[in-house]
Amino acid sequence: MTQSASPASLTTPLADLQINCDRLLHRIDQLAQIGAIAGGGVCRLALTDEDKAGRDLVVSWMQELGLTITIDQLGNVVGTRAGLVAGAPVMTGSHIDTVATGGRYDGNLGVLAGLEIIATLNEHHIQTQHPLAVAFFTNEEGARFHPDMMGSWAFSGGLSSDAALAEVGIDGTTVAAELTRIGYAGMVPCGSQPVKAFVEFHVEQGPVLEQAGVQIGAVTGVQGMSWQELTVTGVSNHAGTTPMSLRHDAGYGASAIAVAARELALSMGGNQVATVGAMQLKPGLVNVIAKEARMTVDLRNTDAALLRQAEAQLAEQIEAIAQKAGLNVTSRSLARFEPVTFDPVMVEQVVQTAQVLGYSAKRLPSGAGHDAGMIAAIAPTAMIFVPSVNGLSHNIKEYTAPEDLANGSNVLLQVLLQLAKPNSV
Amino acid sequence: MTQSASPASLTTPLADLQINCDRLLHRIDQLAQIGAIAGGGVCRLALTDEDKAGRDLVVSWMQELGLTITIDQLGNVVGTRAGLVAGAPVMTGSHIDTVATGGRYDGNLGVLAGLEIIATLNEHHIQTQHPLAVAFFTNEEGARFHPDMMGSWAFSGGLSSDAALAEVGIDGTTVAAELTRIGYAGMVPCGSQPVKAFVEFHVEQGPVLEQAGVQIGAVTGVQGMSWQELTVTGVSNHAGTTPMSLRHDAGYGASAIAVAARELALSMGGNQVATVGAMQLKPGLVNVIAKEARMTVDLRNTDAALLRQAEAQLAEQIEAIAQKAGLNVTSRSLARFEPVTFDPVMVEQVVQTAQVLGYSAKRLPSGAGHDAGMIAAIAPTAMIFVPSVNGLSHNIKEYTAPEDLANGSNVLLQVLLQLAKPNSV
Repeated sequence: MTQSASPASLTTPLADLQINCDRLLHRIDQLAQIGAIAGGGVCRLALTDEDKAGRDLVVSWMQELGLTITIDQLGNVVGTRAGLVAGAPVMTGSHIDTVATGGRYDGNLGVLAGLEIIATLNEHHIQTQHPLAVAFFTNEEGARFHPDMMGSWAFSGGLSSDAALAEVGIDGTTVAAELTRIGYAGMVPCGSQPVKAFVEFHVEQGPVLEQAGVQIGAVTGVQGMSWQELTVTGVSNHAGTTPMSLRHDAGYGASAIAVAARELALSMGGNQVATVGAMQLKPGLVNVIAKEARMTVDLRNTDAALLRQAEAQLAEQIEAIAQKAGLNVTSRSLARFEPVTFDPVMVEQVVQTAQVLGYSAKRLPSGAGHDAGMIAAIAPTAMIFVPSVNGLSHNIKEYTAPEDLANGSNVLLQVLLQLAKPNSV
Repeated sequence: MTQSASPASLTTPLADLQINCDRLLHRIDQLAQIGAIAGGGVCRLALTDEDKAGRDLVVSWMQELGLTITIDQLGNVVGTRAGLVAGAPVMTGSHIDTVATGGRYDGNLGVLAGLEIIATLNEHHIQTQHPLAVAFFTNEEGARFHPDMMGSWAFSGGLSSDAALAEVGIDGTTVAAELTRIGYAGMVPCGSQPVKAFVEFHVEQGPVLEQAGVQIGAVTGVQGMSWQELTVTGVSNHAGTTPMSLRHDAGYGASAIAVAARELALSMGGNQVATVGAMQLKPGLVNVIAKEARMTVDLRNTDAALLRQAEAQLAEQIEAIAQKAGLNVTSRSLARFEPVTFDPVMVEQVVQTAQVLGYSAKRLPSGAGHDAGMIAAIAPTAMIFVPSVNGLSHNIKEYTAPEDLANGSNVLLQVLLQLAKPNSV
């Protein structure tokens, strides 16, 4: 937890302004009805009928709040509240698509808290110097179409919209066809909308804040990520008749690599993590030594050099295991993102704002990818986290307490006001 | 290799008798045409149309050789050549069913070498005191119906024929229905046929003889076998946001168990082997910590006490891994057979016979299960192995050189003659 003096910018009458938590909860609940699944979860995969219904509901709220709506070529939706001066808006937002067994907070919270803030400002007749915008980006989850963070990546000019539109999903449809079908193939070119600053509010999706007993997370950046698929090749043979010394056991090799990956992360410490989430052995029979194992390795670190170090050290260990066990191992990169560092001034602003409002705060990196990680390429960016109960996310049991939702929304409100400069100050 | 003086029983004129290798090879080749698959392999699953065609061919050869044929309730076929005295026969044989991608030698060799010996004796008008029988047992492989060694297990009274007949196969059919369909539902009750002695000739299916450069294996017994399915339960969570110290990673737990199983076998030495042939992680995604892993562990040892020790030590290590990683592990026994020790006098007879015939010989245990391991419960039993090229079996590339087929057949011939006591001696 960071201890720091209150910033001068918060010693204002508007420091007492608060969002209406009941209204926020009501919107969260209404949106969660669309694609609701048993157990309290939500299935609203990008560009499906459910996504269309969710989009239509959020757009109707934007219209009720008087926002000016733009839709770009990839279906990214921005609702803008005019400022006293023209120019790039201070933007907040996130996404409303979910994974197949998702929760009701992931993404949705950031969009609906943005709308709640607009509603609060409207109610109190507060104008800002700079425009304020609430955005939701297409296909953040990547559960139906690759890659994840597709919309925000294209919005920030990093991904070609032509490539994204041509993407074929898990059900054989294309992004272009589905955008047209649901009526969200907009005209605004991707990469054409400037942003003055971006703040994303999100549930943590991990256990750090809860474990630390801290109310607000000031996100310092997004971990870099290296995904590999390894294919371990040995020789299939009889599990009874083949002495240990004569084996080329691909199942053993894969297991030894999985153990080495974990030990590597533990020995490096810091925020290095390593995960082997998938492993298949062939032929996969109880009494046959596996001739092949396919596995994935997910390495993440906030520091670009340490991530490269982890990749290099794991490669060395894989080579040593392969040599010793008489195996061949090939590697294919599935995805790789360099770490993103958020704007230090804005991160400090989140910490100080939280503390002035009386909430405990902690700086932490995000282990998950977020739209903010993409927008950081074109605008000063920060993120606000609130605790996830048991660290669960991408899970129908995802839950964040109403008090935490209100706390984070109020921090977001004050940070946005500082950035957009309310006229009444 | 055992060095020993020639036994008195081989200093006879019949010690020069040899089988006709070309005739044996021709029968092997003809049988391998039935159910032949690309690459030189064979698919003749138990009680299929292919198995029927294979059975019909072998039975026609038995008839040509003048054998009296009995078929029992489970379709085990015994062809008997009368001796000068009535009573239990000296028996050889094996099985002719194969796995889905099997070779042409596994099982088939033992049956066809038996027929070749009968042909050789007929040709030389050699009578024996005791009857000589060649048997092939139903469903040794267990690839279509559980358990493996079904026929010989029932033949020796260890498995109830009612239970075996009711068994439902991988395609939903029953043993009883398929036996009737292919015309091999015999009338002779299982467990009713006495055996004076049993010798099974088989390819090694492992690399030991080839690696040692030895021609004949005198099998000392069949390894005991313990098959377990383990279910490792952890907590699914985000691979990026969950610090290493807060994980309950079922994939890591399963991998650590697989590594521990191998290290246990290496540290115990001797003929202890340990194999993890199957492992599945759930949900099995690159960026999700696995909540569950299912895996199999196959432990084998020729010594009953050492096998129990291996089971106990692995259980301790599993418990330690589970404790340390915050996981739960449950175990279910899939199969368990105590080790079988073959008749020491007959094993010595195989070694000495091989040496008298000028072949190098080596005692070794069988890592695979065999019909002989079942018949050992009711009669003095031994097995003869010949080398498998590259130790391959249950593989279309299974291969044993013609010279080795002849060597083993000649050892079998002499051992059977010693047991059945030829009249001309």
